[in-house]
Amino acid sequence: MPQDPTLQNFDDLRQALGRLPGPDAEAEAAARTREPQLTKPPGSLGRLEELSLWLAGWQGNHPPRMGTPRALVFAGNHGVTAQGVSAYPSGVTAQMVANFDAGGAAVNQLCRTFGVELSVEALTLERPVADFTVEPAMSEEECLDAVVSGIAAVRENTDVLCLGEMGIGNTTSAAALSLALYGGNAADWTGPGAGIAGPALARKTETVAVGVARHRETIDDGLDALRHFGGRELAAIAGAVVAARYRRVPILLDGFVATAAAAALEATRPGALDHCQAAHVSAEPGHRRLLDRLDKAPLLDLGMRLGEASGAVLAVAVLRAAAQCHAGMATFEEAGVSGKSDC
Amino acid sequence: MPQDPTLQNFDDLRQALGRLPGPDAEAEAAARTREPQLTKPPGSLGRLEELSLWLAGWQGNHPPRMGTPRALVFAGNHGVTAQGVSAYPSGVTAQMVANFDAGGAAVNQLCRTFGVELSVEALTLERPVADFTVEPAMSEEECLDAVVSGIAAVRENTDVLCLGEMGIGNTTSAAALSLALYGGNAADWTGPGAGIAGPALARKTETVAVGVARHRETIDDGLDALRHFGGRELAAIAGAVVAARYRRVPILLDGFVATAAAAALEATRPGALDHCQAAHVSAEPGHRRLLDRLDKAPLLDLGMRLGEASGAVLAVAVLRAAAQCHAGMATFEEAGVSGKSDC
Repeated sequence: MPQDPTLQNFDDLRQALGRLPGPDAEAEAAARTREPQLTKPPGSLGRLEELSLWLAGWQGNHPPRMGTPRALVFAGNHGVTAQGVSAYPSGVTAQMVANFDAGGAAVNQLCRTFGVELSVEALTLERPVADFTVEPAMSEEECLDAVVSGIAAVRENTDVLCLGEMGIGNTTSAAALSLALYGGNAADWTGPGAGIAGPALARKTETVAVGVARHRETIDDGLDALRHFGGRELAAIAGAVVAARYRRVPILLDGFVATAAAAALEATRPGALDHCQAAHVSAEPGHRRLLDRLDKAPLLDLGMRLGEASGAVLAVAVLRAAAQCHAGMATFEEAGVSGKSDC
Repeated sequence: MPQDPTLQNFDDLRQALGRLPGPDAEAEAAARTREPQLTKPPGSLGRLEELSLWLAGWQGNHPPRMGTPRALVFAGNHGVTAQGVSAYPSGVTAQMVANFDAGGAAVNQLCRTFGVELSVEALTLERPVADFTVEPAMSEEECLDAVVSGIAAVRENTDVLCLGEMGIGNTTSAAALSLALYGGNAADWTGPGAGIAGPALARKTETVAVGVARHRETIDDGLDALRHFGGRELAAIAGAVVAARYRRVPILLDGFVATAAAAALEATRPGALDHCQAAHVSAEPGHRRLLDRLDKAPLLDLGMRLGEASGAVLAVAVLRAAAQCHAGMATFEEAGVSGKSDC
């Protein structure tokens, strides 16, 4: 197995992206051999069948395991909230971290329901990243620190990792990052977030447009865009996605913000997200657009738009179903069931 | 609570449909009061929020319970298989019932994964219903017997009931029933089922067209259409849907066949399926069309087309998530989290 990336600077991160390992061909082939022997018409479990192969390949295990799913939620604060882009005050980020720690948030309930171990990492909330309408959100050093936090948080003994975030102002950050990566208009990527509308939404859209216009010419690549617009929680998610690839941990990406963070990697190195599934598509309109650009079909579409890894943890249920069907079903031969006739 | 329907004849069943109880307004109101107090932006859990209210109302419990989900799979055989409409021989119905009993099928794995208790009821498999291209599939007495089997199978202590089926030939039955209920062309409702294509699919479509043309003029209502085209497993599903309404048990409908059976009730008495959710939309093309006619948005869309309640049992995960978030989350007041500001 390749070594974990050790990072001194941004170029080390770029090099780590250049050396990403692929899936385990042997485990994937074993899954591909077993699947059509199971007592069901070929293809009748739809995406569950694909997911079994995908899990086996990226875990490097056959049959794929789902005994130890984990969730990581990174929290960060954003200087851009000074522009009045959120319906909630910045203090809510720390309040929600306390709520996660006390077990009272939605993600805690979902983790309980599906047996997912939750870790929450607050990234220097008392020091928000800079307002990107004024200067880059992070220096290379700050961004790298956050990326390293994300790398360090990924544990080896993890069958799937759900990545999510909490950060008042971070859909503004994700919209600017998406605009920088994919172009279009600021309005294409800017949405209500936690719940703004009307003039406040227009102000948020304008903030995204101004910020991207300010930095666009000087941005080198996806990682540099992440540094300019991302919060620390986005950088940590990007780090966790890279580390998980090296540690053979498949990823469930949560909503718009987590996906935008991951998209910065894909923009830098196509294929960087092959070990990631889009757990769901958020009601935040930029998310569907982003998933289209990434060519990722979401597993769930339930109108959720909460973040905090909630959609990713819910999708653990789908992976558990896939893994259990693949491993536990009888074959046609074992069950004495007749196969398909020639018609 | 209203009495269970006791049925001597088809008119008793029609009368039971006329007296269906509504949701419990008090439990639903309690859910509606609690939901906006929970630590999340209003609406950010999307359909999970609606599902909490729906569960509370139809269970008559607040908070809604998800401790005892059950699944019922009814199996039946179809004389119309003589027309060569299926990729599998009729004997597979009984073989798959044995596979369910032995724990080797997909639905067994899904029930294990999500803690759902499974019951399987084989409805006189040795005596298939008549070939509907020749005569009505069932007499009123036969149909009523199957409906009563479905009614008897619904237990009171059930927090949600997943309804599914197994029966070689039954997508042909469901297609004919759908065509009889909603019109259109036979091709609109006929699909590959367990896996036919080309000339065999054309033959299946023609079989549906011929069968419906033969009986259309003499069919009285949705229940009578069910008798003409449905297998016993479809009639049992219809019976279970009615009984569950009286017993305050919300329903997760599985795929095309289960939904077609339920649609016969809705066609007879609009609103008869208000206590039912469409668990998923099947890859069988008629299912999406049927859900559109019923105005039901599916919870999952994973390309599944297996039947045997598999999609319904998977959707139990979504209901568990909804119930746990609703009951377990902290309120803004409890958690000391600031609410939304005025913007």
